[in-house]
Amino acid sequence: LRTLTLFFFLAAATRAQDIPALPPLMPMPAHIAMGQGLLKIDASFRVKLTGYTDQRLRRGVSRMLVTLTRRTGILFTSEPTPSAETAALVISCDHADKPLQLNEDESYRFDVTPSAIYLKAAQPVGALHGLETFLQLVAPGPDGFDVPAVSIEDKPRFAWRGLMLDSARHFMPIENVERTLDGMAAVKFNVFHWHLSDNQGFRVESRVFPRLQTVGSGGQFYTQAQVRSIVAYAADRGIRVIPEFDIPGHTTAMLVAYPSLATDPPPVEIDHLFGVFDPAIDPTKPGVYLFLDKFIGEMAQLFPDTYFHIGGDEFNGKVWRESLRVQQFKQAHGFLPTVADPDGNTALHAYFNTRLEAILRKHGKRMEGWDEILAPGLPKDIVIQSWRGQKSLSDAVHRGYQGILSFGWYLDLIQSAQDHYLVDPLDKDAAALTPDEQTRILGGEAAMWTEWVTPETIDSRIWPRAAAIAERLWSPKEIHDVRDMYRRMEAVSRDLEFIGLRHRSWQTLMLQRLAGTGDIENLRTFAEMLEPVKNYDREEFGPATTITPLIHLVDAVPPESQAARNFAADVQAAISSDAQARDRARTQLLSWQRGIDGLPTLLEHNALVSGIEPLRNHARELNRVAIDALDALQSGKKLDKKWRAHSLEVLKASGTTYDALSICTQQSIGLLIDAVSS
Amino acid sequence: LRTLTLFFFLAAATRAQDIPALPPLMPMPAHIAMGQGLLKIDASFRVKLTGYTDQRLRRGVSRMLVTLTRRTGILFTSEPTPSAETAALVISCDHADKPLQLNEDESYRFDVTPSAIYLKAAQPVGALHGLETFLQLVAPGPDGFDVPAVSIEDKPRFAWRGLMLDSARHFMPIENVERTLDGMAAVKFNVFHWHLSDNQGFRVESRVFPRLQTVGSGGQFYTQAQVRSIVAYAADRGIRVIPEFDIPGHTTAMLVAYPSLATDPPPVEIDHLFGVFDPAIDPTKPGVYLFLDKFIGEMAQLFPDTYFHIGGDEFNGKVWRESLRVQQFKQAHGFLPTVADPDGNTALHAYFNTRLEAILRKHGKRMEGWDEILAPGLPKDIVIQSWRGQKSLSDAVHRGYQGILSFGWYLDLIQSAQDHYLVDPLDKDAAALTPDEQTRILGGEAAMWTEWVTPETIDSRIWPRAAAIAERLWSPKEIHDVRDMYRRMEAVSRDLEFIGLRHRSWQTLMLQRLAGTGDIENLRTFAEMLEPVKNYDREEFGPATTITPLIHLVDAVPPESQAARNFAADVQAAISSDAQARDRARTQLLSWQRGIDGLPTLLEHNALVSGIEPLRNHARELNRVAIDALDALQSGKKLDKKWRAHSLEVLKASGTTYDALSICTQQSIGLLIDAVSS
Repeated sequence: LRTLTLFFFLAAATRAQDIPALPPLMPMPAHIAMGQGLLKIDASFRVKLTGYTDQRLRRGVSRMLVTLTRRTGILFTSEPTPSAETAALVISCDHADKPLQLNEDESYRFDVTPSAIYLKAAQPVGALHGLETFLQLVAPGPDGFDVPAVSIEDKPRFAWRGLMLDSARHFMPIENVERTLDGMAAVKFNVFHWHLSDNQGFRVESRVFPRLQTVGSGGQFYTQAQVRSIVAYAADRGIRVIPEFDIPGHTTAMLVAYPSLATDPPPVEIDHLFGVFDPAIDPTKPGVYLFLDKFIGEMAQLFPDTYFHIGGDEFNGKVWRESLRVQQFKQAHGFLPTVADPDGNTALHAYFNTRLEAILRKHGKRMEGWDEILAPGLPKDIVIQSWRGQKSLSDAVHRGYQGILSFGWYLDLIQSAQDHYLVDPLDKDAAALTPDEQTRILGGEAAMWTEWVTPETIDSRIWPRAAAIAERLWSPKEIHDVRDMYRRMEAVSRDLEFIGLRHRSWQTLMLQRLAGTGDIENLRTFAEMLEPVKNYDREEFGPATTITPLIHLVDAVPPESQAARNFAADVQAAISSDAQARDRARTQLLSWQRGIDGLPTLLEHNALVSGIEPLRNHARELNRVAIDALDALQSGKKLDKKWRAHSLEVLKASGTTYDALSICTQQSIGLLIDAVSS
Repeated sequence: LRTLTLFFFLAAATRAQDIPALPPLMPMPAHIAMGQGLLKIDASFRVKLTGYTDQRLRRGVSRMLVTLTRRTGILFTSEPTPSAETAALVISCDHADKPLQLNEDESYRFDVTPSAIYLKAAQPVGALHGLETFLQLVAPGPDGFDVPAVSIEDKPRFAWRGLMLDSARHFMPIENVERTLDGMAAVKFNVFHWHLSDNQGFRVESRVFPRLQTVGSGGQFYTQAQVRSIVAYAADRGIRVIPEFDIPGHTTAMLVAYPSLATDPPPVEIDHLFGVFDPAIDPTKPGVYLFLDKFIGEMAQLFPDTYFHIGGDEFNGKVWRESLRVQQFKQAHGFLPTVADPDGNTALHAYFNTRLEAILRKHGKRMEGWDEILAPGLPKDIVIQSWRGQKSLSDAVHRGYQGILSFGWYLDLIQSAQDHYLVDPLDKDAAALTPDEQTRILGGEAAMWTEWVTPETIDSRIWPRAAAIAERLWSPKEIHDVRDMYRRMEAVSRDLEFIGLRHRSWQTLMLQRLAGTGDIENLRTFAEMLEPVKNYDREEFGPATTITPLIHLVDAVPPESQAARNFAADVQAAISSDAQARDRARTQLLSWQRGIDGLPTLLEHNALVSGIEPLRNHARELNRVAIDALDALQSGKKLDKKWRAHSLEVLKASGTTYDALSICTQQSIGLLIDAVSS
């Protein structure tokens, strides 16, 4: 083996662009060394299990072989063969898992020689991770499919690597949940945080309190059998499932079902709009704690993981402030106004959480909640999930709590993979913590809130960007080269479609819907210049409801345009006198112009896309400016003030958003304008 | 209503190209008249059932609403509302169906006004067809989705409109079968002919003879519950299911399971290769008829349709000729050699079929079989399926039998939709039959044999071409404008993806598999110049087996290139001095050249596609010739003999096939060469 540690590779890569790239693994392993040669993968490929083995590992191997068949088209025997003498992949585990525990040993070692592959792990869960690494290494080569000779030692940086899915605002059918879990396993996420109740719906069948689903779900809920099946499906993939039932706010659906749990006035119907609403559970009613005891008792059986998420976020306190009953309760319990807590609600919320925590503990659960649950008196083994940021997180950790980060990883905000990738749970305020304190930062979770997605579009909002977050949570902190991340994320993105994710293929049907009988290629080309507006800006284009059709061009456009990203790189290189990059940029601009010119017949007769007409005009003008600038770069001439003034006007106009879409080449073209202005 | 019969439209269309096209319906209705205005389809859309109604119709309406939601993104109430006063679609049926009968009344009448839609049918099956017509009319328009005002009177030309699926050579999972039925319903096919046994496998669970599946299927078979579910699934969509168990030849799988049924020597293992093999059932053994009686008795319960297909095709007779036992039997029964039947096998086969027919009749079934089963003495109510052509078909019909046509409609031969579309059961020899005789030609069936397809690729081989055959069987004979057919087939093709067919989206994953980490767009562009070889030519590139990976570029290329078809039309127009068409043709050629030039890095390191290297070179040369020719057309110059000689050489060389692919622009470019040669 030609030993080459990742660190050296990265150091070298900054000096020379032409070093052969490492295989497109994501998350990148902790240590990788490329060898010489490769191992061919053909129909003779067999897997042998040695050492400790169990049914979960066997199923994992079968699943890997099914994926390998999809990826290669070769029909593999889908059973591991314990006795095969000629196995190409030999798996050995030392001992059994203690499944679903935080801090399992997830490490593995993976060695490919030209004659065999050895995958070693302490426990099956590590072997499962190694199988995903193996799948990412298989590629077509000069002699059919192969894996390169390589030596990998790998283990995660953080023990808690999660993805939160909101099944409340838009219900997500079981098949969506399953394929989300498939994607998670592929990039070594190990926690599925399932947001199961909110103002818009309560999503789990309760047999103890059936009105939760009969009244509170609008008919859209998971049966207990489905929940069990998902928990097992996740466990098979090394993923813990942590349910979230958000209380005391975000509870309209629960309270419509059981109004007696509410502080008056109880809500009368589940919400179809989104936002922070007033209804809340009433912490002064003894019946509430009886309800929670029974309800949590039931759910504790359904969700075997130790942790249980009670939400606790974004409660506006209005009904508590205005209720005479609550005011009296506060007085009786001494929850008196202070400067920090002018209405005593914070103290009352803490009281509620303390009682809630005791109920959870009774049922064998540890509490998890958002930043707002933190209050004196809660035991130190709870977990704080921070949507507020590293400061809030490190405050909690400094006080002795455990925490995970979600700030910076809200996938619904449509930020770039780069933005998410460069967030680190141990940066900012958390960097000042002691090493011992830092160990209480368990990891983090990407969060997929579902105001603006449907089962059709959600894959494109989770993937592939979530893979960048998965890498941040698994790989060494030093791995942060953005360009290489994008190269590898592209490969992962492609592979995810083979296991059933639809984040790429969804676009075609959406464009066809918009285009009617028209051709979609021009629309697809034009769409490469566009990105959805970011953060919460989409709300400015009209409110979403749970039943608003999300079928506009913005819904058919990925969060990031790969073409625009490549264009930006070419523009920067072109400005630094790279003639090939300049030619590529021009070719791209001409392609976009062709797409734009091909559009009019589509726009004329179709209300679904007619709103993008102004964007098209801005884009066309902007591309003309860019082509002028590239011509000037080529000839070495500077362009005059008049041209610059016109171009800046075009540039400014092209910053306007329409139908929740913006032109995403604007910044690059601004650089071009500057580069050729005299 | 502006009355306009289809006949007049077609007549007019031949005179003027610019008449507004009819909506992209397929099959085109018997009578259609466009009105003024349109009806908007929004979330308020409701369906009302009046007159006779039943559960099947209700389910059909629910299914239509689900499809409508997929197509529009609007969430519709998925239940018909019998009481809705404000329904936009009012369905009324006169009376119940007699389900699964040949010659049901499938007619319907469909009227759209700007305020409501009326769908009237004699029976629910007609209403189901009308719902499919409705779905084809919904399109995005100036005010959201709408349907145009229209008046349609429709009924099928033929009562038997089938698609045969071979689940024996390559087993097709249930989800493939279901989506095939979905596609069939969309274009009004009404017979699903299921080829369930052949040399490579026996595909249905038998409880009476379980070795059929345990030994004869390689583990790939449908359980009885699955079969019942498919039969119900089809019936819900107005589709009869006719099973085919092919005997006495094509029986290796059955005879490996039950060797005592075979004429010696029995086969010892099921075939993995394809072809016509020797093993056959032995018609001289009494046990064979006992077996068939029990087996057919069991299957007759599973498949409720009156007709039962016994295959009977392609028996080579070898084992019968060589068996002493069979020779003695022939002598004993007087099956003596004649000029037409030199070995007496034809007479023996007729004897076998006569006994088989009696068994079928005992179990309430009428016999159906391929051309070869026809023999004197069989009752006239059997159905002959002709793979041999209109002559064989009309011979059978002339002798008093009923028949259906499959010749010309073998989808596995990768012919063009046009080729299939222009086949007519009543053409050629059948045209000479008396009108009374012609009524015994019940219709026809497209046939999908599965030597060269897998569950992954089969959709692309069935669809959208089968839609052209569906139209031939449903619509009036006079509707045969090929260009308009392609326009409408393109719309149907798009819609089929919305109901779950993968004939378009399959390509992306296949190209990604081939491309590894490379970009697929250049490969996709180049592939537009290619088509799979036709007829049985693929066999020349190596034998298929049941386990050969079908993952090469040929498997990722549709049977017909739409881009090449458009190019051919542009070339013809360009030769007739259409400057716009000439520019389009040039743009297309430049796009292909860009794709070709982008390919090399892909080809160098990848054995899966390296075989197309020579094609790429031929294509590049050929495109250069074509660009020369277009330039000459534009300048009005003729090109010299030397150019012509060179061009013809390039043209000839580009006719060579590689990796079962051929360049499909060759003919158009030949015309160009001629047009500009001096």
